[in-house]
Amino acid sequence: MDYSVILEQIFEEVQEYFGKGKVANYIPALSKINPKKLGISICTVKGKEFSIGDAEEAFSIQSISKVISLTIAMQLEGNRIWSRVGREPSGTKFNSLIQLEYENGIPRNPFINAGAIVITDIISTPNKDTKIELLQFIQNIINNENLQFDMEVAKSEKDTGYRNAALANFLKSFNNLNNKVEDVLNTYYHQCSIHLNCKELSQLFLYLANGGKTLSGHKIISLRQAKRINSLMLTCGLYDAVGDFAYRVGLPAKSGVGGGIISTIPGELCISVWSPELNRYGNSLVGTKVLELFTTYTGLSIF
Amino acid sequence: MDYSVILEQIFEEVQEYFGKGKVANYIPALSKINPKKLGISICTVKGKEFSIGDAEEAFSIQSISKVISLTIAMQLEGNRIWSRVGREPSGTKFNSLIQLEYENGIPRNPFINAGAIVITDIISTPNKDTKIELLQFIQNIINNENLQFDMEVAKSEKDTGYRNAALANFLKSFNNLNNKVEDVLNTYYHQCSIHLNCKELSQLFLYLANGGKTLSGHKIISLRQAKRINSLMLTCGLYDAVGDFAYRVGLPAKSGVGGGIISTIPGELCISVWSPELNRYGNSLVGTKVLELFTTYTGLSIF
Amino acid sequence: MDYSVILEQIFEEVQEYFGKGKVANYIPALSKINPKKLGISICTVKGKEFSIGDAEEAFSIQSISKVISLTIAMQLEGNRIWSRVGREPSGTKFNSLIQLEYENGIPRNPFINAGAIVITDIISTPNKDTKIELLQFIQNIINNENLQFDMEVAKSEKDTGYRNAALANFLKSFNNLNNKVEDVLNTYYHQCSIHLNCKELSQLFLYLANGGKTLSGHKIISLRQAKRINSLMLTCGLYDAVGDFAYRVGLPAKSGVGGGIISTIPGELCISVWSPELNRYGNSLVGTKVLELFTTYTGLSIF
Amino acid sequence: MDYSVILEQIFEEVQEYFGKGKVANYIPALSKINPKKLGISICTVKGKEFSIGDAEEAFSIQSISKVISLTIAMQLEGNRIWSRVGREPSGTKFNSLIQLEYENGIPRNPFINAGAIVITDIISTPNKDTKIELLQFIQNIINNENLQFDMEVAKSEKDTGYRNAALANFLKSFNNLNNKVEDVLNTYYHQCSIHLNCKELSQLFLYLANGGKTLSGHKIISLRQAKRINSLMLTCGLYDAVGDFAYRVGLPAKSGVGGGIISTIPGELCISVWSPELNRYGNSLVGTKVLELFTTYTGLSIF
Repeated sequence: MDYSVILEQIFEEVQEYFGKGKVANYIPALSKINPKKLGISICTVKGKEFSIGDAEEAFSIQSISKVISLTIAMQLEGNRIWSRVGREPSGTKFNSLIQLEYENGIPRNPFINAGAIVITDIISTPNKDTKIELLQFIQNIINNENLQFDMEVAKSEKDTGYRNAALANFLKSFNNLNNKVEDVLNTYYHQCSIHLNCKELSQLFLYLANGGKTLSGHKIISLRQAKRINSLMLTCGLYDAVGDFAYRVGLPAKSGVGGGIISTIPGELCISVWSPELNRYGNSLVGTKVLELFTTYTGLSIF
Repeated sequence: MDYSVILEQIFEEVQEYFGKGKVANYIPALSKINPKKLGISICTVKGKEFSIGDAEEAFSIQSISKVISLTIAMQLEGNRIWSRVGREPSGTKFNSLIQLEYENGIPRNPFINAGAIVITDIISTPNKDTKIELLQFIQNIINNENLQFDMEVAKSEKDTGYRNAALANFLKSFNNLNNKVEDVLNTYYHQCSIHLNCKELSQLFLYLANGGKTLSGHKIISLRQAKRINSLMLTCGLYDAVGDFAYRVGLPAKSGVGGGIISTIPGELCISVWSPELNRYGNSLVGTKVLELFTTYTGLSIF
Repeated sequence: MDYSVILEQIFEEVQEYFGKGKVANYIPALSKINPKKLGISICTVKGKEFSIGDAEEAFSIQSISKVISLTIAMQLEGNRIWSRVGREPSGTKFNSLIQLEYENGIPRNPFINAGAIVITDIISTPNKDTKIELLQFIQNIINNENLQFDMEVAKSEKDTGYRNAALANFLKSFNNLNNKVEDVLNTYYHQCSIHLNCKELSQLFLYLANGGKTLSGHKIISLRQAKRINSLMLTCGLYDAVGDFAYRVGLPAKSGVGGGIISTIPGELCISVWSPELNRYGNSLVGTKVLELFTTYTGLSIF
Repeated sequence: MDYSVILEQIFEEVQEYFGKGKVANYIPALSKINPKKLGISICTVKGKEFSIGDAEEAFSIQSISKVISLTIAMQLEGNRIWSRVGREPSGTKFNSLIQLEYENGIPRNPFINAGAIVITDIISTPNKDTKIELLQFIQNIINNENLQFDMEVAKSEKDTGYRNAALANFLKSFNNLNNKVEDVLNTYYHQCSIHLNCKELSQLFLYLANGGKTLSGHKIISLRQAKRINSLMLTCGLYDAVGDFAYRVGLPAKSGVGGGIISTIPGELCISVWSPELNRYGNSLVGTKVLELFTTYTGLSIF
């Protein structure tokens, strides 16, 4: 199927939604982004690619990186990770300490900040540089030799990251962090600061739509694990708005406060969208609308 | 596809799980059930049916009835219902008053008790007998002339239903109940007491897998609405275990404390299973296992 | 000591605070009160009485009645009551269901609504009219033959009391209510509807300042029990504002949404004040100011 | 009055309670204490002193130090401190992050850990060594030239203090910490590590019973401020057990996990007790019993 026409129509139709959200402003590097950016990119399991707008401009992937670290943790530890983090929707704000206190330091899922910090701890080992391993994971799939961290973003995150520091120390107080608080947070801030564009993101996460394999057939995880990451994204991938997103869009997805969203249609394609203005749940406002129109016009949906 | 062999294999394989759960015992009528019961029934969109075990023995559908009342509410009010009930996973026990207090009387979703009571209020109007309308909705689809309420169950529910009475009064205190507390609860207890068997349930809920239409082509709701009920079941249909169920089974589903679960594979089939022993989340233990094996052996899954 | 001059000075000084609070408006009978009312009355353990303003105009005592029912419960059951209700400040709104859910149906203290409903249940027995016993308890101390319930208030409370009905049903679901929900609530609404004036209240509750004895020497409770009710009033008597009140006023006290507050200085006196406008915590705004000035000017305080 | 005989009687009577509590074990330095220790010391406003048992053996005062830092903060900032910390009982565990999240970073009172950390921040300024100022405050009152911090305890607190680090970072994320997280925590751990004995504690805190003045007549705070600290101790001084303690003992008090409790009878005396075994609320078990018997036998109580 040729998605070019549909992408053009959606691109035009969502223009009216600009100005209705707010760019993330908790760190300078994010707040300076031009709010009018919009990129969309599709990569199908057949290897076709369709892009429009700012699809080749890299942005801070932020929480989308949690899918990468979760994938690596599943490669390393398989189902053992579930003794340290849950698989249930949180029902509360994405950085809530309340749930963590009631549930004795076991975060509800790998996509809230507390859960992602535990996952980063799981993939960290004393004798290697975990940050670099994350970059290599990406480079092995998408062939971008210049890939690196945005040091300014990573530093800003660290300087303002008191809530994440609170979460990490709280996890440590429940013995759910093996490495040093500072080290885990350092890796975590770096992973959030990675810059990628929509084309790269669709290529990168195609394995989730392709039974665990990259476009070139390289096995990243098993079919079963790919399905499970998709199910986790559907039930936990959009913070407090998972139900609303599932209701409107009906696809597994993961968003970041940089304005990016990646979404999969298992067996078909991976679609990435980027637009910096966020809705009140912290998800890209225009990006959400793009995906809603995409499932409406194509009839594609997992339901 | 012929599911007979797979059902036989699953039926045999799950025998070892009997005795590991507990039959619901909060009302006598439920606690007297033989815990060894197991029925499975499939109805495909092509009209093929496959059953095994106690698939023709009726049981108390309990919370599965919430899908019926939600469907009727969507027929009557469409998207207007979402001003009175949310669409997000609850993250807390299915009858929690805490969330209701923090969110000013708007239940998180239509499948927790508070939300289902609001839905029952929405479909109630002063001049008709809502209980009877519920029965007629079912009879219009499955042709069971003897269908009726289990008066013993309804009475037991009422006699022990202090927590539901607390929820209904609490909703009323937030002006989120239009009808009288007693009347809404009376309808609610009756709807939970309906008895159906697995075959009937698969025929009844086939419209969720069939674009909103019954097997005979009668339109119950729109394709879009059917997709949305499926997404609500996936994100909110299994109480506190939605994430775990989505992870293991990967299908939209709704369970009841009577031991029944209905589940849909959009575009393919509706499968119902009944086994009274419950796991710690209040979902049928053997039934959950049946569905997990079903998606494993068939490779069917929405992810 | 002659408190006449001090009362006059305070009376004048607090005039500027009228208009800064809001009269309770959840039932018509309360909302119709003239907000400018102000009565103050002191009864000392020596038998001296001092009054000013509207001290002889009866008003709805509302939650002040919780001290009466608690006293009767202590007479009947002594320390056994503490298995069914706690003695700790609630830390949350006075009618919160959240705490009740986390603590399995044991209300934090006898002065939040849930705790007072349990206390009313404790003093209720099938074969007597508890409402009447409450009136007789009062009449035995203050000699008011015309004392009766305000039927309009009691009915209004019942008609709008969905949150109290939620609390009572919730308590019943935890097996912390022995009598019928309707019966306990009926007694509870009647006890809240009792009308007394400031002079009567100071005479009535003098036993708390007088080692458990009335002015005429009749023993109501033991010295130890009187001290304990005083300590409960100090730590739990003013809803969410106990700390602030203890900080400003420094006396045991119990307020009601009718605008009344009773307060004791152990060994010295009981002081009652009435002014209908409430502050944001639901306590009389002018009444609180009166008591703050009273302890400032007299130097009396338990600290 | 001569309290010698009463202290002897109480000392004997409480022997049976040893072995029923548990010594704090979260840091090695505390867990090594001999659990059989018991010291009691009284200092009256007339300058009489009465002691028994291990009253001259110094121990880690832990949270009792929160009264010292609060006193200094009131000296420096007066009522301005209440914009950054509340005055209400917490209703939850003493190190809870939940309340902090719901109340946007304003701790409920100065005696829970979060509130004490804010108070430590208030008394910290960049150009002085706040630790040393705390020691000097004490030395100015009690004349102990050898007073110093227990470096082992301070280091242990820091090494295991992930929950306090979580609290401090969380406060910082709400902009309720002006100084660096590390610096405030460092001062906080040192203040908790101060060692004093019962005699010294009763002399030190006599100003709370003596209208703000030391025994030698030196003014520490105003009469009004002394009353207010007493009221704060009564409503917030014993973690989750304030109501129970007020009910049993009826005195303002502050406890520490080292097993110490200081308590005041305004206008009369200050009493200190030390016994390391804690009850389930984290207060000295034998110490609480001592104070309960003391008010019972002397008839002294603020109620």
